[in-house]
Amino acid sequence: MPQTLPENSVGIVSPQRLQFDQALTLACGETLQSYELMVETYGELNADGRNAVLICHALSGDHHAAGYHNKDDKRPGWWDAYIGPGKAIDTNKFFVVALNNLGGCNGSSGPTSINPETGRAWGKSFPRLRVRDWVESQARLADRLGIQQWAAIIGGSLGGMQAMRWALEYPERVRHCVVIASAMKLTAQNIAFNETARQAILADPRFREGDYLAESTYPKSGLSVARMIGHITYLSNDAMGEKFGREVRSGSFERGIDDAVEFQVESYLRHQGDVFSEKFDANTYLLMTKALDYFDLAREYGDDPEKAFADAQCRFLVVSFTTDWRFAPERSKEIVNALIGANKPVSYAEIPSNFGHDAFLLPNERYEKVFTNYMNTIDISPEKKQ
Amino acid sequence: MPQTLPENSVGIVSPQRLQFDQALTLACGETLQSYELMVETYGELNADGRNAVLICHALSGDHHAAGYHNKDDKRPGWWDAYIGPGKAIDTNKFFVVALNNLGGCNGSSGPTSINPETGRAWGKSFPRLRVRDWVESQARLADRLGIQQWAAIIGGSLGGMQAMRWALEYPERVRHCVVIASAMKLTAQNIAFNETARQAILADPRFREGDYLAESTYPKSGLSVARMIGHITYLSNDAMGEKFGREVRSGSFERGIDDAVEFQVESYLRHQGDVFSEKFDANTYLLMTKALDYFDLAREYGDDPEKAFADAQCRFLVVSFTTDWRFAPERSKEIVNALIGANKPVSYAEIPSNFGHDAFLLPNERYEKVFTNYMNTIDISPEKKQ
Repeated sequence: MPQTLPENSVGIVSPQRLQFDQALTLACGETLQSYELMVETYGELNADGRNAVLICHALSGDHHAAGYHNKDDKRPGWWDAYIGPGKAIDTNKFFVVALNNLGGCNGSSGPTSINPETGRAWGKSFPRLRVRDWVESQARLADRLGIQQWAAIIGGSLGGMQAMRWALEYPERVRHCVVIASAMKLTAQNIAFNETARQAILADPRFREGDYLAESTYPKSGLSVARMIGHITYLSNDAMGEKFGREVRSGSFERGIDDAVEFQVESYLRHQGDVFSEKFDANTYLLMTKALDYFDLAREYGDDPEKAFADAQCRFLVVSFTTDWRFAPERSKEIVNALIGANKPVSYAEIPSNFGHDAFLLPNERYEKVFTNYMNTIDISPEKKQ
Repeated sequence: MPQTLPENSVGIVSPQRLQFDQALTLACGETLQSYELMVETYGELNADGRNAVLICHALSGDHHAAGYHNKDDKRPGWWDAYIGPGKAIDTNKFFVVALNNLGGCNGSSGPTSINPETGRAWGKSFPRLRVRDWVESQARLADRLGIQQWAAIIGGSLGGMQAMRWALEYPERVRHCVVIASAMKLTAQNIAFNETARQAILADPRFREGDYLAESTYPKSGLSVARMIGHITYLSNDAMGEKFGREVRSGSFERGIDDAVEFQVESYLRHQGDVFSEKFDANTYLLMTKALDYFDLAREYGDDPEKAFADAQCRFLVVSFTTDWRFAPERSKEIVNALIGANKPVSYAEIPSNFGHDAFLLPNERYEKVFTNYMNTIDISPEKKQ
């Protein structure tokens, strides 16, 4: 944490673990008899409960979206740039709820947590999840928190998929849906990158077919390569060029001594892979990428996205970034076109950025303005009685 | 091989292994006391030796560029679409030379061949190579074959880098330089993909720090993942979408039975990785990708590509493909601009194609016409005496 807490920070926050004992039947057919969700909240729920905002996280996110856990924290939560007093998601106005999704590895029930029925870690036996399962668990979280209707559900990437699914599954419980750098379904190339990352994990002999926890080993190398693959696709070609170019970190190009030439981009990527593989769970990675691949908003609506959105009752903000090639602006425009076709109110912004898919996490003046201005339009005053 | 040999095929061809006993000092400072090159030739060298064409291969190519090795061959050589009687590289006109580069794993001296000094396989001890080392070994091959000057040197991708390096190192020995889907240097993103592929190999415990041959094991999984990474980048997003979409190969999306859902693109990629990992050598893969990364045409010319090309004496044809994002048209335009700046004769074509980087290997009418028309301009008549 910085020596002085920034004025626009939500400050020191404490996550809470909530226990749910009502059985949850999942899309795959299996049932979780009970489960826990790790949650953080920022701001205060108003008297009518009309100011609640749900933050849905992406592949590797968690419940710690803003603020600091203690004064020694070096970094704030993952979306601190956009959550806090006076920020786009203004905690003076909104009651913000962030959670670690089911299947995650940061405190919610997932492969690394204990299966209460066996007393041992779930590991590879944790059930497959779909985006709709997260929506269901988030709906129960809303019930628990006394939130009948979200003022807004907001997510980037895989988080945007959850926000859209909410609008379809619980149309009466969402007033605004903010979908950032997302898509109605992955492209074959997206799936191909995910599958290659999964193969890197599966190929690591320390993966032990998913039983690494029971066997006290860990597929660190495989997960590290998986993250490297992902990381390249989150950055734009331009951003990598600007950040690293062909700068050499060690060694020299001169004849005779090039054995040790290493480009900065190589050591950067290896470092990213290393760090990630030390804090993330491999089974969770497999589970999350599969949920991404399976997501197909309009599949059950005859592959017609206009039909899919037909019953949505909320307003939409859709945002994309010019150099995002993993979730390209074209994917966002498909969402926008479907919403227009379905006669739903939608605002769209394509934000110029050099930072590829990662841009949704990073400070960007135009993005901030678009986001803030939209959030300012949200009415949180008491519902008018008829 | 098809039941009937196609009329425009070079037919049944036999590779030959040529031994070179003149020591070759490499860019890295090490010296190969002797080495072998695996070579195929198509057509006949004319009396003046003015009709010789050198084919430089890319990352995973070899000497078998055209025709069939025997009547049971299912597929012809890797560039059969463009080499043969009446084809772009017309073997009725040209004497075509294709080789497996030094460091390869298809018969030329490389990590899988025997180090004559130790009597054991080179393995990881095979020296690091640069593109200029290939040019040097190819120049000696030209000497051996009695070729003073190539009518043309032609290559795609890493092969194009060799063709350009030839034009700089031996300007008097090249009349035409055909550079297809190539670049003067890799981008940071290119290097990042290569490094991730290398890490997948290095992370495989069966790699044994490169000593897998001596230890009778093989990093098949690692090499397979490496190839999957590469393969995604050789295809365009569009081509993958058209070829696979989100078609499911096995399993079903219906609730309750999605455990086995597998997309076609997944099984396709795994198959590609599997096949490749069974026929290619992991140390060669590391060596070839490093040569790609190190290549930087203008580095020794003060990073000024115009200076680099200043002494070139040949004409150039540069070709790129619209959807190639690994070696994007922008990279080819940089070559063209440098050549124009250096007052060199250059033709350029950007070919519409959906097939990404792979397009340089595939039939394409416009590409074929551009290529054929250019090759038709090459004069192979006896040099006029002054």
